[in-house]
Amino acid sequence: MNVVMTGIPRVPLQIARAFAPYGVATVHEAQGRTGLMASHMRPIYGGAKLAGSAVTVSIPPADNWMLHVAVEQCQEGDVLVVAPTSPCETGYFGELLASSLAARGVVGLIIEAGVRDVAALGEMKFPVWSKTIFAQGTVKETLGSINVPIVCAGQIVHPGDLIIADDDGVVVVSRRSAEVVLKASEARERKEEATRARLKAGELGLDIYGMREALAKKGLQYVQAPAED
Amino acid sequence: MNVVMTGIPRVPLQIARAFAPYGVATVHEAQGRTGLMASHMRPIYGGAKLAGSAVTVSIPPADNWMLHVAVEQCQEGDVLVVAPTSPCETGYFGELLASSLAARGVVGLIIEAGVRDVAALGEMKFPVWSKTIFAQGTVKETLGSINVPIVCAGQIVHPGDLIIADDDGVVVVSRRSAEVVLKASEARERKEEATRARLKAGELGLDIYGMREALAKKGLQYVQAPAED
Amino acid sequence: MNVVMTGIPRVPLQIARAFAPYGVATVHEAQGRTGLMASHMRPIYGGAKLAGSAVTVSIPPADNWMLHVAVEQCQEGDVLVVAPTSPCETGYFGELLASSLAARGVVGLIIEAGVRDVAALGEMKFPVWSKTIFAQGTVKETLGSINVPIVCAGQIVHPGDLIIADDDGVVVVSRRSAEVVLKASEARERKEEATRARLKAGELGLDIYGMREALAKKGLQYVQAPAED
Amino acid sequence: MNVVMTGIPRVPLQIARAFAPYGVATVHEAQGRTGLMASHMRPIYGGAKLAGSAVTVSIPPADNWMLHVAVEQCQEGDVLVVAPTSPCETGYFGELLASSLAARGVVGLIIEAGVRDVAALGEMKFPVWSKTIFAQGTVKETLGSINVPIVCAGQIVHPGDLIIADDDGVVVVSRRSAEVVLKASEARERKEEATRARLKAGELGLDIYGMREALAKKGLQYVQAPAED
Amino acid sequence: MNVVMTGIPRVPLQIARAFAPYGVATVHEAQGRTGLMASHMRPIYGGAKLAGSAVTVSIPPADNWMLHVAVEQCQEGDVLVVAPTSPCETGYFGELLASSLAARGVVGLIIEAGVRDVAALGEMKFPVWSKTIFAQGTVKETLGSINVPIVCAGQIVHPGDLIIADDDGVVVVSRRSAEVVLKASEARERKEEATRARLKAGELGLDIYGMREALAKKGLQYVQAPAED
Amino acid sequence: MNVVMTGIPRVPLQIARAFAPYGVATVHEAQGRTGLMASHMRPIYGGAKLAGSAVTVSIPPADNWMLHVAVEQCQEGDVLVVAPTSPCETGYFGELLASSLAARGVVGLIIEAGVRDVAALGEMKFPVWSKTIFAQGTVKETLGSINVPIVCAGQIVHPGDLIIADDDGVVVVSRRSAEVVLKASEARERKEEATRARLKAGELGLDIYGMREALAKKGLQYVQAPAED
Repeated sequence: MNVVMTGIPRVPLQIARAFAPYGVATVHEAQGRTGLMASHMRPIYGGAKLAGSAVTVSIPPADNWMLHVAVEQCQEGDVLVVAPTSPCETGYFGELLASSLAARGVVGLIIEAGVRDVAALGEMKFPVWSKTIFAQGTVKETLGSINVPIVCAGQIVHPGDLIIADDDGVVVVSRRSAEVVLKASEARERKEEATRARLKAGELGLDIYGMREALAKKGLQYVQAPAED
Repeated sequence: MNVVMTGIPRVPLQIARAFAPYGVATVHEAQGRTGLMASHMRPIYGGAKLAGSAVTVSIPPADNWMLHVAVEQCQEGDVLVVAPTSPCETGYFGELLASSLAARGVVGLIIEAGVRDVAALGEMKFPVWSKTIFAQGTVKETLGSINVPIVCAGQIVHPGDLIIADDDGVVVVSRRSAEVVLKASEARERKEEATRARLKAGELGLDIYGMREALAKKGLQYVQAPAED
Repeated sequence: MNVVMTGIPRVPLQIARAFAPYGVATVHEAQGRTGLMASHMRPIYGGAKLAGSAVTVSIPPADNWMLHVAVEQCQEGDVLVVAPTSPCETGYFGELLASSLAARGVVGLIIEAGVRDVAALGEMKFPVWSKTIFAQGTVKETLGSINVPIVCAGQIVHPGDLIIADDDGVVVVSRRSAEVVLKASEARERKEEATRARLKAGELGLDIYGMREALAKKGLQYVQAPAED
Repeated sequence: MNVVMTGIPRVPLQIARAFAPYGVATVHEAQGRTGLMASHMRPIYGGAKLAGSAVTVSIPPADNWMLHVAVEQCQEGDVLVVAPTSPCETGYFGELLASSLAARGVVGLIIEAGVRDVAALGEMKFPVWSKTIFAQGTVKETLGSINVPIVCAGQIVHPGDLIIADDDGVVVVSRRSAEVVLKASEARERKEEATRARLKAGELGLDIYGMREALAKKGLQYVQAPAED
Repeated sequence: MNVVMTGIPRVPLQIARAFAPYGVATVHEAQGRTGLMASHMRPIYGGAKLAGSAVTVSIPPADNWMLHVAVEQCQEGDVLVVAPTSPCETGYFGELLASSLAARGVVGLIIEAGVRDVAALGEMKFPVWSKTIFAQGTVKETLGSINVPIVCAGQIVHPGDLIIADDDGVVVVSRRSAEVVLKASEARERKEEATRARLKAGELGLDIYGMREALAKKGLQYVQAPAED
Repeated sequence: MNVVMTGIPRVPLQIARAFAPYGVATVHEAQGRTGLMASHMRPIYGGAKLAGSAVTVSIPPADNWMLHVAVEQCQEGDVLVVAPTSPCETGYFGELLASSLAARGVVGLIIEAGVRDVAALGEMKFPVWSKTIFAQGTVKETLGSINVPIVCAGQIVHPGDLIIADDDGVVVVSRRSAEVVLKASEARERKEEATRARLKAGELGLDIYGMREALAKKGLQYVQAPAED
């Protein structure tokens, strides 16, 4: 059965926006190294970054009908997250759909398939993370579902989950733990800042993290290279 | 037998140039979703775009001798299209061959193999769409053929066919239908412009394209998400 | 047994720096088309270029402990070269380790695995060539070795070997032949410059390289394309 | 936090065993074309087939410690389903672990990583579906979790879900719907049997399924091939 | 426009059957190393071999409607050759369609996509060469074309062309040159038989083919390995 | 410069043959988890196994001339190990070369490229581990080198090194350590046998290896699954 769940709960906008200073790597660490989509999800242009609540789309291969249905379910600050039910590269999404989403305040698209019109999307500054870039068109014949749990690039995404994406990839934060992860990200960033300053000053991680003893215990040997012949 | 077909018919320059406003996705749609090369054909730098007549090269794996032969067959506005007879990544093409092609007015290269000197090619603004970037050199021992029909990245290319390439990939337009496809691209673009304006104004594709009834007929259900616990 | 070889011999800094004008393709040709890493080693941002002596790291999959050990073994002008003992994509390296390496004068990283914080690395101008970009974190549990011979992306790298990397990829020059290869690169470049000028002026490679006779001997046929119907 | 959930509910053995006549393709169709793992999950030998309740393992890359923990949680008729938290090919599993699982009545392994000792596993008739075959060993340093929901090869697997696997791949049936899907599989098989008989007798699907009118309506044209010249 | 070409010319049955003793490698060599499909086209079981005339199908991604149309166009000795218009892995074909084709005397299937029910197909001895094995189902919504020229796995296939397939892969022989290629295959086989006998008797290819002089001329050096220390 | 090293030292035949009972996984573990070739090296038929001294070939892409040169350098018990200087899939090797090698007592081929005539090779019981199966032919134009160190599938192979291959893949044992590794393999096998017996009897690895305390110390929690609703 194909359904559109309407009126899903989301992460509050001010929480999502508070993630702006924290990258995917930081958030992923802050929530215990979970939630990271596969590395084949790449941004179509460098320097993009987003944080927003997921509107999920389970979609048939090579058929983008449900994307038009999904637009209506989107609101300010949302991120569209799309996974086909069978792996494909078809170009489900281009400039027209982006114009429509942008008009509703959607901040970007995550799609485990193809995207096209990437030059125009770059000019519009509508960021997309996708599996591939491919101009191949789709049909509009078969239903899918909106705002059901999906698996996208190896991660479960529930509607309303928080999506963070940047040049490092895409990470999913469960809606209910968004605030906790935000605090953990802040804490991690603060700690890293202190470490970064010491490293820049030339101190070694070996000393800052106190690793020398543990390495020796595991049996690491230091050996002088033989003199050059 | 290895041949060089000389004096092939081409798409008139003014027709090729008239494709400038139309991207790969538009042209591919305008000719009925055909002619698109595989998504592994990527530009070596962003923002490049070309339209020109194909000079085709069927070339042995890891041997670029025939590229030197091909240069002489090229003229103003041509695009060199190269496919090896066995899949390989070797770097067939670099700055020197690009200088030679540029001197003859060739507008770019499509090669289902490797290319090198990509920094220099970027500075020269000589655009290349290739399967990979690889500095590995070739030998010059074995013949191939010039201006015979080839299969490049999954598409048949006849000598003189029109090649359009941009950030979305590469599409082949049969020489004889170039003018028809140009008109269809213009028509499609005009239509999209109107739609784009309406979408930007916040109208929904669901309404513009009149999809609601068909979706309901297929059985799409709208369900209110349960109140949050 | 896990060892750290200390005080390895290196290519003199002035020799490494003298490679600045020569790209990977040139150096690879100049040393007889050897030493090129596989094409999946790509720079995280365009336009980067480095030449320096290798500090090598053989590292367990998904465990970056030894990178902290490696930092201490690095000095001005070095390049860190890292290969896991089993293929993986984990993000071994990010901004903190880069800060630490930069503080010691290290000029870049070559890693046949994942890297993260790529936006920050781009801002710092710390160049990395890697197999993938992936935010997935590592553990610190298992030893590896530093400055032992490794295989990275299909090439043997000995500690102290010269590494050249640019937009075309990564090439390894044996430490002892660095000076010879430098001279050969200069010679090749000089020769190419002359050829480039002639090609830009419209001369054909067929004539410059005197290929016509050899092609005819191999049986290449020139055939006039049939008149268009 | 790393947990081992003990005493999970399972699909009753007699239900699981009743799936014996139905292949992956049938079950996947019978439950509405859902639940299919990615096509890279391949059996290590031909002709294997299993149906059983999942004991799930979320495991660190290149570290098989938790497999030893998992064995104790397995019982007669179970299937071990293993997904690493970061993609890797390491050989987590071989003959010794298989002996241990077989002693407990486990019917097979599904692992999105590597497996080794495949000749011995074939002789033991212990079936495995894996991403790759690779002899590379693992460490035993880092915890994971047992019987938590995991994503394996693109599908969510909950502990106790029913796993069906054969030469076509692997499909997941939610524990609670196992009985319903069993009935639907039986029904589908019965229907297919009738169709199969008619097709073998030479009737056409075009007629059996009554497709001719719909095809004509969509505009399909039949054209006589030109006489041979 | 979607068409079904009916009554296409084919290679005579007795010619096709005369190819039985010659493998793909032999035929491919005999016709000048052309016509070979990409190496990702693999048989679903070992030891299969076929030779027959192609009925070609250009098919939408993830939609197998046209396969039902194609069955009616097939006759004794035909090979169905199927290529989707966009790359996909969907399982277009299984036991039912095979039963239908077998009833018409079709000798096998070549498909650049997925196939399912492979255990049953093996029992039926209905050979298939495919890109992947995947149980994922298709829809029946969109038209394609039958008996038009297609590109399948990198090769142009015209309706009626001869297809030879075995454990080495798939090769296409143009319909009009089938007889010539048959003779060339026979000649090649006869010649190889003589060489094989001499090689088995211990003669060297270096001597049989008279390569020693050419190797020396190219500069090959024989050097005695240093005595072991 | 291209050389053929003659008269290389090898691992004594009786040592190589003594490896017969030990598989790739065992040998790889016994020598400290080193020497394993990449998982893309697969046997062309199941159940094959070999152990022998390497005759190495560094070979140009798509050119098999040097294989004919290599045959003469082979003797009873050798394994031919071939790596192209640039990645390719070409079918370098088939039945004729196998006949020639078999006549000299060569026990198999390891090639990081393509092989053909696999049905015939299976009938001859000439085992091959390769990157792919591909009928595409090669030329004979360019020299390579014999019995120089090569990198094959990620491992350094020196001439005379011991190669062990089975259904799990291929492992390289340095010539000088062959005897030590043989002893270590025997020891490992003996130890595993004892463990295997205990595991088959139903004892748990958790207890045999005494893991429970270490797991608890790392913080592993056992939690009873909630009663089913």
